[in-house]
Amino acid sequence: MNFASDNWAGATEAVMAAVTRHNGGFAPGYGGDPLTKAVNQRFAEIFEREVEVFFVGTGTAANALSMAAAGRPGGLVFASTEAHLQNDEFGATEFYTGGMKIVPVRSDAGLMDAAALSASIVRYGGRFGLPTVLSLTNATECGTVYEPAAVAELTAVGKSHGLVCHMDGARFANGVAALGVSPAEVTWKAGIDILSFGGTKNGCMAAEAIVVFEPGRFPNLTALRQRAGHTQSKARFIAAQFEGYFENGGWLQTARHANAMAARLTAGLSGKVRLGWQSTANEVFPVLPKATIARLRDAGARFYEWPAEGLGLDEDLIRLVTSFATSGDEVERFLALV
Amino acid sequence: MNFASDNWAGATEAVMAAVTRHNGGFAPGYGGDPLTKAVNQRFAEIFEREVEVFFVGTGTAANALSMAAAGRPGGLVFASTEAHLQNDEFGATEFYTGGMKIVPVRSDAGLMDAAALSASIVRYGGRFGLPTVLSLTNATECGTVYEPAAVAELTAVGKSHGLVCHMDGARFANGVAALGVSPAEVTWKAGIDILSFGGTKNGCMAAEAIVVFEPGRFPNLTALRQRAGHTQSKARFIAAQFEGYFENGGWLQTARHANAMAARLTAGLSGKVRLGWQSTANEVFPVLPKATIARLRDAGARFYEWPAEGLGLDEDLIRLVTSFATSGDEVERFLALV
Amino acid sequence: MNFASDNWAGATEAVMAAVTRHNGGFAPGYGGDPLTKAVNQRFAEIFEREVEVFFVGTGTAANALSMAAAGRPGGLVFASTEAHLQNDEFGATEFYTGGMKIVPVRSDAGLMDAAALSASIVRYGGRFGLPTVLSLTNATECGTVYEPAAVAELTAVGKSHGLVCHMDGARFANGVAALGVSPAEVTWKAGIDILSFGGTKNGCMAAEAIVVFEPGRFPNLTALRQRAGHTQSKARFIAAQFEGYFENGGWLQTARHANAMAARLTAGLSGKVRLGWQSTANEVFPVLPKATIARLRDAGARFYEWPAEGLGLDEDLIRLVTSFATSGDEVERFLALV
Amino acid sequence: MNFASDNWAGATEAVMAAVTRHNGGFAPGYGGDPLTKAVNQRFAEIFEREVEVFFVGTGTAANALSMAAAGRPGGLVFASTEAHLQNDEFGATEFYTGGMKIVPVRSDAGLMDAAALSASIVRYGGRFGLPTVLSLTNATECGTVYEPAAVAELTAVGKSHGLVCHMDGARFANGVAALGVSPAEVTWKAGIDILSFGGTKNGCMAAEAIVVFEPGRFPNLTALRQRAGHTQSKARFIAAQFEGYFENGGWLQTARHANAMAARLTAGLSGKVRLGWQSTANEVFPVLPKATIARLRDAGARFYEWPAEGLGLDEDLIRLVTSFATSGDEVERFLALV
Repeated sequence: MNFASDNWAGATEAVMAAVTRHNGGFAPGYGGDPLTKAVNQRFAEIFEREVEVFFVGTGTAANALSMAAAGRPGGLVFASTEAHLQNDEFGATEFYTGGMKIVPVRSDAGLMDAAALSASIVRYGGRFGLPTVLSLTNATECGTVYEPAAVAELTAVGKSHGLVCHMDGARFANGVAALGVSPAEVTWKAGIDILSFGGTKNGCMAAEAIVVFEPGRFPNLTALRQRAGHTQSKARFIAAQFEGYFENGGWLQTARHANAMAARLTAGLSGKVRLGWQSTANEVFPVLPKATIARLRDAGARFYEWPAEGLGLDEDLIRLVTSFATSGDEVERFLALV
Repeated sequence: MNFASDNWAGATEAVMAAVTRHNGGFAPGYGGDPLTKAVNQRFAEIFEREVEVFFVGTGTAANALSMAAAGRPGGLVFASTEAHLQNDEFGATEFYTGGMKIVPVRSDAGLMDAAALSASIVRYGGRFGLPTVLSLTNATECGTVYEPAAVAELTAVGKSHGLVCHMDGARFANGVAALGVSPAEVTWKAGIDILSFGGTKNGCMAAEAIVVFEPGRFPNLTALRQRAGHTQSKARFIAAQFEGYFENGGWLQTARHANAMAARLTAGLSGKVRLGWQSTANEVFPVLPKATIARLRDAGARFYEWPAEGLGLDEDLIRLVTSFATSGDEVERFLALV
Repeated sequence: MNFASDNWAGATEAVMAAVTRHNGGFAPGYGGDPLTKAVNQRFAEIFEREVEVFFVGTGTAANALSMAAAGRPGGLVFASTEAHLQNDEFGATEFYTGGMKIVPVRSDAGLMDAAALSASIVRYGGRFGLPTVLSLTNATECGTVYEPAAVAELTAVGKSHGLVCHMDGARFANGVAALGVSPAEVTWKAGIDILSFGGTKNGCMAAEAIVVFEPGRFPNLTALRQRAGHTQSKARFIAAQFEGYFENGGWLQTARHANAMAARLTAGLSGKVRLGWQSTANEVFPVLPKATIARLRDAGARFYEWPAEGLGLDEDLIRLVTSFATSGDEVERFLALV
Repeated sequence: MNFASDNWAGATEAVMAAVTRHNGGFAPGYGGDPLTKAVNQRFAEIFEREVEVFFVGTGTAANALSMAAAGRPGGLVFASTEAHLQNDEFGATEFYTGGMKIVPVRSDAGLMDAAALSASIVRYGGRFGLPTVLSLTNATECGTVYEPAAVAELTAVGKSHGLVCHMDGARFANGVAALGVSPAEVTWKAGIDILSFGGTKNGCMAAEAIVVFEPGRFPNLTALRQRAGHTQSKARFIAAQFEGYFENGGWLQTARHANAMAARLTAGLSGKVRLGWQSTANEVFPVLPKATIARLRDAGARFYEWPAEGLGLDEDLIRLVTSFATSGDEVERFLALV
């Protein structure tokens, strides 16, 4: 019963098979290999347009390099109060950008509010810094998702102030699967300029990609990545992971499976316990009595508490994360224990 | 006939097997998994002492984070004129350290000169900056190696000026194999404080480690790595690579093989063509007529030219790199063509 | 009727006289001159202990270099929601520290709340970053002041979590004058480790000092200042400003004058208009009808609006700043117009 | 007999008078004052074109901010082996630019060699980094000067590789005075894009300006300066220094005086002692027997040794710097002692 994080799972069979398959022989380093080129082409197909792709090994690298590519001195990044960028990356954005500030924007279950975004830009622009980037996470850190229309509304606010629009897609597959839309609809067609495309949480070993929708728009990215030590020499191994990841649409199948497991958790918990909020991707946030939490832990369940307000003294909000590796059996056992 | 670089090879069977073997099930992220702990213990055995180990995905990250850990504002890094740190990392050291300078020290075929080091420290210390780190590469970028006594002589100079002593071991295995010494003898026993231990060039996919010989000495390393986005969530996959790498001393066998292939190249070329210098690890640097170079390329050989001085108009210095994946047959075909 | 900012005033006669007096002859550069040494000694007398002093030209430099001296990678700075450090310095702290984050702590009229500080440290320490520095401004950006006991309470919370305690004293003189305490009581005796001591706003041209209460505690400061281009070659001119500033206790007289002018504004406004909050240093924040604001401006009064919440549609909060150069006549004319 | 440095002198009477003259009354902060605007206009007249001017307090700030404005990640700065930027600023360029490297280019008495520049760009561009900025100092750190034609030759090389062309004019007045050309001829008419215009060494207290010849070309400069804490609040005092500096062409008169004093030193030493090289601005570099050096010091002369090669065991190269404050009497006494 492991719901600690989707990064506690390993890699899918398809990913592992692709890595093994591409291991033999010699291949040019630093992304000059034919597999990297082929996989870049796959990204173009998936997003239905020419794109520029930069592989990196971690989501923090994808986010921080995106911020550096889109940033400027004295710039401000607007992101939700729940943004991973702000809460979990130890100042990577500030470090990579030479000191840009992140302005947390009011959000509801991780979903930024367009009015609050607009107010923040007006309030903080000028004296505080120069409004420069909008970053929204989809699926969010709270398991919720932005519909394409919501993305478009937020990017419209951002663009009216000249902001570059970034999407943190650490759980992009879960978001797309939950929404039932095309990758294009929820990104560049909705105003996104640059995307951190995550593979790791959904079944890769360590494969993330920065996707630039207007090739050449961020000319410093190659140098930024190299200067940061994020250009992998044997790049074919990231490329191979993505090949396996995309094979036969597998990346959306694993995401759908994870989302389905989360939906079963939600269904099983509803009516019995309070949920912090409704979520549709692969994370569920129930409020449980502390005694129940202890009992679940004793029975072997793994999960983390999540910061929350408005709780009773005897209860906590916990986060349950599902992944391609979560089994229905695990879910049922967990629900039975609750 | 691929002698372009050791990073054009894939991963060894042992490495790939270990990665596959450890793929199943759940494991805590960010290095909290038992495999990471076990592999750290392997490092301790290999170095015959307690060590602190930080996995990263690239050699540039290992070097730049080491410099940041050991550095200070206004500091100077002393490294050979051939140092990868200075020549091939696009300012990673300068970026990670908030602007430390690298002072190139006169070297002979990549081997720094103790007298030149001493003179450089005296010459540049004070007005130019604060002498802070000595970095020496072993095996060097030129395929040469420092004997433990040579390391000790250089670190003694460094320590007499208060420098932290770093070794760039991107090709550490090749160095140790060529020297026939223990890893301990050529590192901490010879005065090295912190080591970039490379796995990638010698048969891993993407596995490097920063090894600190006095645990706790560089307390910022955990935060430095996270701030840079170099903390991998599914750390077990780097750990697994190292497990496979070390298995049955395989890491030294692959290094010995690569060195032996290089020695065959050296032997086959000697007497026929001039060598830029004698090397004993897995790189050979012959001077060849441009016509020969063109002919070799036409026949399918892959290699790069290397910057050099004192060449005739009709010749170039080339670099031949061997790896675990180099076959004797390739070597013989190449020699036959020359 | 100029209440725009204390930096709209020039320099006091004493400051200008000292600068002129010390202009002749040759003096060693970069702080090696006897006047700099003598002025450092004056700081020691004023603070009743040995101190280390670093002159700089701006308050932002004093703050950001203090943060860099006290900081570490991944560190967090805790400061009030009104802190200049956070709101007005365009990311200087983030830039100088390689990406530390500033955590805004709930405050009332610029005065941080000890319970909120404690809660913030607990809430954000760990996942978000490493709690590292506490910065409190005295007098605050809102014209309020921390009593020594309040400083001690906050630094006690900070020190219990290992924080370095910094005071932003851009208006230190106004604070000390308003409190009627000694400089020592409200700084190191109350737990402050490092102080940005401002001279510019209270009658210097451009003279600020970083004061370290335990000499040698922040060994990087000399290099940090030089690397940032904040080490002035003709340092005697900053020293001379401070000599003139301190002469016959003039620095506290000018501050008392500014505070008294503010008190007259407060007295004259009270009962007639609402004050955003009570302040005792040299800033007053009345809420005025927009029509009145327009009328005041037409009559030649200079001041700025200040961000505020809970205002009526027809009113604004304005900030009135007094200085050594404010005359009683100006104040009376302003009050008559209101 | 003070020849230690031009920054050991104070300020000229004209500078001090202007500062005193503009002290009274209120003036908008941060450069919004009319005097700053008027002085910017003076810069335009002096350079015979519209320019954008950014005041700062030190030459290191002017240089490092120029590099940051013109730079990019992974960029390279080409500067002479004698460049202050490289040798005396403690990594300010590296810090401000997020890690750009400075490539020292072979020079003769501080004068960069166009062929060597071209060779350096070709040699280091690509693998080492991205050629981005050319910085040349005029007058050089060695008291020599570039004729407009020499500047044009170097900038032509630079521009053919896409470099931004910067001039470090810490001793710009001495250079212009020695050359007898117009400020325009030796800067933008010769291909310079951005200039560090120094006032401090030639009679200001602390006044430097970054001059951009194509206004708006470096849009980040305002934010870069603020983020670095180099935006002075009472900017009128830098403006006043420049007003006094430029008054009646005084800046060139003081420079001519300093140059003339240096010429007298050169004339008096020639034939008697060896000169390291011929110089025409306000620095002279004789080689003297150590015994003579000691004797001069005993007699009260102040100067520094300068790093040099090819000296006998019993001799040293010294640097003699003259300024507006150097008297003919001092020079004669010094020469008499030699």
